[in-house]
Amino acid sequence: MTALINQKDLDFLLYQVFSAEQLTQLERYQEHDKATFDSILDTARGIAADYFAPHNAKGDAQEPHFDGTQVHTIAEVKQAWQQFAQAGLLCAQHDYDQGGMQLPTLINMAANAYFMSANPATVAYSFLTAAAANLIQAFGTEQQKQTFVPSMFNGRFSGTMAMTEPNVGSSLGDLTTKAIPQADGSYKIKGQKMFISGGDQDITENIVHLVLARIQDAPQGVKGISLFIVPKFLTNEDGTLGERNDVKLAGLLHKMGYRGTTSTVLNFGENNQCLGYLIGEAGQGLKYMFKMMNEARVGVGLGAAMIGYRGYLESLEYARNRPQGRLANEKNSDSKPVNIIEHSDVKRMLLAQKAYVEGALALCLFAARLIDEHQAGGSEDSAILLDLITPVVKSFPSAYGPKANDLAIQVLGGAGYTRDYPVEQYYRDNRLNPIHEGTFGIQSLDLLGRKLWQHNGKGLNLLMQRINTTLEQIQHPTILDLSSKFCKHLATVQSTTQKLGQALMQGQTSEALANSALYLDMMAKVIISWLWLDMANKAQQQFGQSELVEDQQFLAGKLQAARYFIRWELPEIEHQAKLLSEFDDTCLSMHSDWF
Amino acid sequence: MTALINQKDLDFLLYQVFSAEQLTQLERYQEHDKATFDSILDTARGIAADYFAPHNAKGDAQEPHFDGTQVHTIAEVKQAWQQFAQAGLLCAQHDYDQGGMQLPTLINMAANAYFMSANPATVAYSFLTAAAANLIQAFGTEQQKQTFVPSMFNGRFSGTMAMTEPNVGSSLGDLTTKAIPQADGSYKIKGQKMFISGGDQDITENIVHLVLARIQDAPQGVKGISLFIVPKFLTNEDGTLGERNDVKLAGLLHKMGYRGTTSTVLNFGENNQCLGYLIGEAGQGLKYMFKMMNEARVGVGLGAAMIGYRGYLESLEYARNRPQGRLANEKNSDSKPVNIIEHSDVKRMLLAQKAYVEGALALCLFAARLIDEHQAGGSEDSAILLDLITPVVKSFPSAYGPKANDLAIQVLGGAGYTRDYPVEQYYRDNRLNPIHEGTFGIQSLDLLGRKLWQHNGKGLNLLMQRINTTLEQIQHPTILDLSSKFCKHLATVQSTTQKLGQALMQGQTSEALANSALYLDMMAKVIISWLWLDMANKAQQQFGQSELVEDQQFLAGKLQAARYFIRWELPEIEHQAKLLSEFDDTCLSMHSDWF
Repeated sequence: MTALINQKDLDFLLYQVFSAEQLTQLERYQEHDKATFDSILDTARGIAADYFAPHNAKGDAQEPHFDGTQVHTIAEVKQAWQQFAQAGLLCAQHDYDQGGMQLPTLINMAANAYFMSANPATVAYSFLTAAAANLIQAFGTEQQKQTFVPSMFNGRFSGTMAMTEPNVGSSLGDLTTKAIPQADGSYKIKGQKMFISGGDQDITENIVHLVLARIQDAPQGVKGISLFIVPKFLTNEDGTLGERNDVKLAGLLHKMGYRGTTSTVLNFGENNQCLGYLIGEAGQGLKYMFKMMNEARVGVGLGAAMIGYRGYLESLEYARNRPQGRLANEKNSDSKPVNIIEHSDVKRMLLAQKAYVEGALALCLFAARLIDEHQAGGSEDSAILLDLITPVVKSFPSAYGPKANDLAIQVLGGAGYTRDYPVEQYYRDNRLNPIHEGTFGIQSLDLLGRKLWQHNGKGLNLLMQRINTTLEQIQHPTILDLSSKFCKHLATVQSTTQKLGQALMQGQTSEALANSALYLDMMAKVIISWLWLDMANKAQQQFGQSELVEDQQFLAGKLQAARYFIRWELPEIEHQAKLLSEFDDTCLSMHSDWF
Repeated sequence: MTALINQKDLDFLLYQVFSAEQLTQLERYQEHDKATFDSILDTARGIAADYFAPHNAKGDAQEPHFDGTQVHTIAEVKQAWQQFAQAGLLCAQHDYDQGGMQLPTLINMAANAYFMSANPATVAYSFLTAAAANLIQAFGTEQQKQTFVPSMFNGRFSGTMAMTEPNVGSSLGDLTTKAIPQADGSYKIKGQKMFISGGDQDITENIVHLVLARIQDAPQGVKGISLFIVPKFLTNEDGTLGERNDVKLAGLLHKMGYRGTTSTVLNFGENNQCLGYLIGEAGQGLKYMFKMMNEARVGVGLGAAMIGYRGYLESLEYARNRPQGRLANEKNSDSKPVNIIEHSDVKRMLLAQKAYVEGALALCLFAARLIDEHQAGGSEDSAILLDLITPVVKSFPSAYGPKANDLAIQVLGGAGYTRDYPVEQYYRDNRLNPIHEGTFGIQSLDLLGRKLWQHNGKGLNLLMQRINTTLEQIQHPTILDLSSKFCKHLATVQSTTQKLGQALMQGQTSEALANSALYLDMMAKVIISWLWLDMANKAQQQFGQSELVEDQQFLAGKLQAARYFIRWELPEIEHQAKLLSEFDDTCLSMHSDWF
């Protein structure tokens, strides 16, 4: 098996680029040091390698099935779930007195990266559960917390988020599931939910659904939506199970990839007996859910990055060992074939993958660090910056991770197209990511239509400050050459943003938002280029700090990948900026009956 | 079921853009007129819709399997094969006295387009057979023709091309399969072939393999390769079957998509009893095979275009009928949701698909017309131009067809990711096309390293003449606006090509070819833009020739798609040209141990 992550790369990112050790100066993390971080990461890597990676292909080939009564998953999924829970990873970030490890998000994200690389479909159950437990922990009553959270943290119960419905899709404000108040303060829930990941399985004793619904007579639209805990089995305060609740699996959805995670259609209250418990205040459901959703969006970014990363490592291994063809300047056709990694076009495909996936992982870890700066360090600025870039953290990996997987197949050629090699599964698995938790289009509207302008545009200023800090640290001519290129394109993004902002202020909403997908891609390319510039600068500074040849090679690779991204990918934004600045209306003015 | 092709589009392409009726002025096609063309196309559409489309999904879900003795395909595949053969489509282009219809390639390609849209995996058996029969017809002895060709034309026998081997891949010069001369003039074949499409099945009585092998003591490299007919069953001159030949199925390869077509590993001469018959001269095998291969490359382009086209039509249908969300400038969240086709970002995704797939289909039909101009019209220039653009005809659809399929999934959102909708299969099926019959990278080296400079660069001059003819015909200001944009970018391609040519002349082979993939994409975008310009100009001229609203709408759509491709896609070549002109060595200079 190839490695799950390049260990040198993860160490470099955590300790050089994102200064993980600095976090131990925060009170919440003061018991930690590099040794405890590394020990937790070792544990995660071991469990991921031993209990998750081995059945990644099997979980795809033998997807869960529903016999009309029960869902069946392969036995390895439950074993992996238990290992994950027993290692305390479901509540690694929580307080010591809740059984947690008070682990920084940065380290937790790195631990999660191993699992996403090993088996994204199996670990989805764990991540969904952790997110649902976090939400109850944050907004639930004491009783709700006591009833559900400990059993979710220890792996007896799992969790889901049940938002969309067959006729709703991305437009949550239109959902119709009803909640009817009962005399005892509980609610009866009635409606159908669709695309609910982990909505049923045979892994845990109970499943805690977090369900968006409308309380009877609540207003239309988003302001009428509340959030409910709806367990599969009614649950006593001590966590023991009562009767089966009226939540029924209407069926499993069969997907192209990510097959190991059940995707379900659930009927709530078919027999009018589905009990639910309101979380927090009525009408605040979307606000609560978006706390979980924002976590989930970063999680989707991480998953997309790591599926891409794994494919990169597989194709790299193949390219190093597959002899075929000769170099372009080799005249002698009787000479020995070279390994395909020596061909310039194969280097291009590997370098692009490297730039995408290592860049995407860096972006997710940056988001994690912002969460720590906010939650443990108290920085409101970090929260504002995180909020601004969340659409990018979700979308760049989701767009470029699959591109990397596409290139991985291409490097393997015909072999890559067969199911004897794992890259075709990665390609299918990763195709989910630009869709769920808000499509690329939805994210682009969120960024350009909303996030940029919140807090009087402070988020963008904060981003520019971070970028300037990097720029000020650059001294070496090789990196200065890259940064001057970068700055030219950064200026393009700034002026384009200004133009679009003015148009929005003047009420030209349709025109300004028409090409929002271009804007998201442009902003993402700039942020990733900045991260590459920072990585290149730090790599440059590391030269000479180690005598080991492989350390030098690793650092040289970082520099070359930065050069690739900034020279090959970043300049594409000039054309995008032109279309955006000109308010090009080619798409907007297309009539539906001209197709 | 959605249509297989937009009928208006195909009519427009055949009769307005590529003047199919003009072909009837050539002697070979003089018995034809628009009525015979349309009647054959109607037949093809009917068979494709009735016998191919219905089992496209079933053939994917129930892929062929090998029980150790025999391969089993679903019954529908054989029925479809028989319908195709009985309609005379396996030899539609051949002489009347051979049972053919003397059909122009242009019309045959259009007929094939229906089948590629309906079920590319099932029709692959037919296309491979037609191509193999064409090769024997062109280069075989009278006896070989008589023995095999009639039975291939009538559907009793199928054909394959058996080129690559487990350790060879794209590098055919390294193949090791041996041919040992026998006293009677035949050869004993010994070796293993891999990725042989249609290499075994239970559809036909016999399978005629065209096998590349080295005659004992032949020189190394490509000049030692010869081509052999190796039937599964030995065959008498009257087409009756003799003994089983020593060709054994070692196993089926299981692919991500295109599952309905068997992909095989074949052992020739395990028991030293595999008989083969030399085609033409010894040492000319690759030359003959490339005749078939060039046909196959255009066929791959067509398949990729049509799988993309079908996905476009599916996603269009979905977008027209799926209500969700509100327009960006809609303030009232209680208003009725719009159909998603009204959202600008969905229009973008549909317009991009339309521009890619209709552009790709136009390109394939252009190639077909060049074949007719050469083969029936005697134009050597057309052959030279076809030769130049073949890498583009293979590669543009193979790169942009899958992009279209990706967008089709995105338009459908979560639904598109499930196997309840057909677009995920199209995405998997189409992923084969950038790989087989020469990968994108191989095609780019062929174009930049070879095709451009053959015949003293005449191919490019001929292309420029065709482009100039289009430019001279443009009069309407709307189209002039597009053409002036186009000309700017065309100049970029010309100057870039010149620079690269000079470098190659000076022996800077590695540097000039290092970024060949960029060059192929650049050249493809210019050619497709030219075709869109031509289509837009002809659409503009058609306005007012029909009073029907839907005709006006169709023409307006053509104009808008041209505008999309030329404004949104074409300008991307400027950045590619810059990297090419600067001989950017980011990829070339990456060391294999820096990854």
